[in-house]
Amino acid sequence: MEITPPYLLFLGDVKDNLAAKTGLGIVDWRPEWCVGQLRLEGCNADAGIDDLSIDNAVAKGAKTFVIGCVNAGGMLPDHWVETIVAAVEAGMDVASGLHSRLEEFPAIKEAAERNGVKLINVRHSDQKFATGKGSKRSGKRLLAVGTDCSVGKKYTALAMDKGMRERGFNATFAPTGQTGVFISGRGISLDAVIADFISGAAEWLTPDADENHWHVVEGQGSLFHPSFAGVTLGLLHGSQPDAFIVCHEPTRTNMRGVQTPLPTIQQVIDLTIANGKLTNPDIRCVGISVNTTALEDAEARAYLQGLSEEYQLPATDPVRYGVAPIVDKLVEVYGV
Amino acid sequence: MEITPPYLLFLGDVKDNLAAKTGLGIVDWRPEWCVGQLRLEGCNADAGIDDLSIDNAVAKGAKTFVIGCVNAGGMLPDHWVETIVAAVEAGMDVASGLHSRLEEFPAIKEAAERNGVKLINVRHSDQKFATGKGSKRSGKRLLAVGTDCSVGKKYTALAMDKGMRERGFNATFAPTGQTGVFISGRGISLDAVIADFISGAAEWLTPDADENHWHVVEGQGSLFHPSFAGVTLGLLHGSQPDAFIVCHEPTRTNMRGVQTPLPTIQQVIDLTIANGKLTNPDIRCVGISVNTTALEDAEARAYLQGLSEEYQLPATDPVRYGVAPIVDKLVEVYGV
Repeated sequence: MEITPPYLLFLGDVKDNLAAKTGLGIVDWRPEWCVGQLRLEGCNADAGIDDLSIDNAVAKGAKTFVIGCVNAGGMLPDHWVETIVAAVEAGMDVASGLHSRLEEFPAIKEAAERNGVKLINVRHSDQKFATGKGSKRSGKRLLAVGTDCSVGKKYTALAMDKGMRERGFNATFAPTGQTGVFISGRGISLDAVIADFISGAAEWLTPDADENHWHVVEGQGSLFHPSFAGVTLGLLHGSQPDAFIVCHEPTRTNMRGVQTPLPTIQQVIDLTIANGKLTNPDIRCVGISVNTTALEDAEARAYLQGLSEEYQLPATDPVRYGVAPIVDKLVEVYGV
Repeated sequence: MEITPPYLLFLGDVKDNLAAKTGLGIVDWRPEWCVGQLRLEGCNADAGIDDLSIDNAVAKGAKTFVIGCVNAGGMLPDHWVETIVAAVEAGMDVASGLHSRLEEFPAIKEAAERNGVKLINVRHSDQKFATGKGSKRSGKRLLAVGTDCSVGKKYTALAMDKGMRERGFNATFAPTGQTGVFISGRGISLDAVIADFISGAAEWLTPDADENHWHVVEGQGSLFHPSFAGVTLGLLHGSQPDAFIVCHEPTRTNMRGVQTPLPTIQQVIDLTIANGKLTNPDIRCVGISVNTTALEDAEARAYLQGLSEEYQLPATDPVRYGVAPIVDKLVEVYGV
């Protein structure tokens, strides 16, 4: 799946920034790829970039019209179709993270065929993968894992990728979810792969590389989430990480969307190693990444300090305090 | 996915019984569902039941034409189409475990529409599942797990289902692979489900039931198989077994199809409990099932005796010595 930048971000008429978090995430991490945003009347989301018409965006070089928002239900509403068709008529590819496939709309499909542009459905993988082989590949891999879903795994991996490159590491971000795919322009939405090919897809995503190269892999789900742990385990086996970071949100008590209680960070470390050593016997935890939004500064610092002492590992909030302590740990263990 | 018995088994012109193992498995476990077999010229497989023409099979009540064999590559060869169309014209549904979808062949598709019969692709699940919830359901569940793929998990589950019912248990076999689906007439091929829905599909397969009812669940893959462990974990979480049986083949040294060495039975017990207690804290191992085909009788008995003493669990070969010791263990722990 390849998406050609730069992008015109479509935010529809969604009711808040949360419904446009894919678009906002792209602007956060790849501002240079976003020529502008297009919002319909009544849109309450704002990515903080120029509002552009389709024609102006194309004049500024936009190659792909990215649907960076989600309606209630994740389906494509009929009243967005006219704008999408106009983007196609102007020669842009269209990329969508919605559950609906773009081709399901005859007007979009017909216009795309007539204009010779690509329709990309990030949530649907039509790519064929081999089953996982489990053999050791060259190069190194870092994986973000979590005590739960939605605890900052993607943000942590992106921040580590950036922080490592700034410190001279040869690193590549490997996306496994839709926002990550938009940010890197390639990759797979791992949760949409057929079950037999999860680890094979993760192997495809993190192939053989130079011995000092790092694939920095966005995590998915949690080994302790009863809905999604199969995806998490296939990704763990396929990405065969040398190092992993545990991501955590300290106010969470239950796994997202279900009744299962949250595991401790120690349980996550132990079960990740117990399972992960199948494809990488040297797997180890190199840090803890915490979303401390709910805590005051002093409280957050004390909490991180406590974790760091308890686990004898660097603990940080990548948004608030940066990832330097964990990058230091990588330098100490592996060199640059 | 529902398949209506009785069946006419189609064995094509495959070169040996191994290529017809789906058909032979159906005859082994559901002889009363098989009115006969239909073989093309040159077929070297034989399910040991009457050879019938399509018309004779329909006269004997056959409702579904089951493609119980697989060609090299798993695709449907063109020279089978004529026979399949004839079955459709005679009013039978067609069920296939091949990788090809029956609808891909215009002659089959057109005939099915004209005759109002169902085309069932067991390897392709178009069914929508919810994501797994992880909450405890009523009733009890027994899962077959393995040190590897293809070590007798399906056979063990079917033998346990039969043995338990003979001893007065209220039990239902829950199939998770294609042969199992043909044998039970319903179910899912779990490896064909989208990754996000593995545990949800397993929950659908083993719903709430009477407190003394047992779902006897066919296992898939192995937690130690780097290609398929994601499926195995999703099934473990979704089926939330109270009890599991470890299946093993003693001459195997490497995991099937890859370079990964085989785990010990103890490792499988430990990792199954470590992962499985997420959705069932009371999960426990109740027996060991060994395919002893490669061993002489005395050697096999000594091997099983040794395992039984080492693990303090019943150990048997279900084909050679039956499942009574493991059923005894269930009676001892749970009552009937």
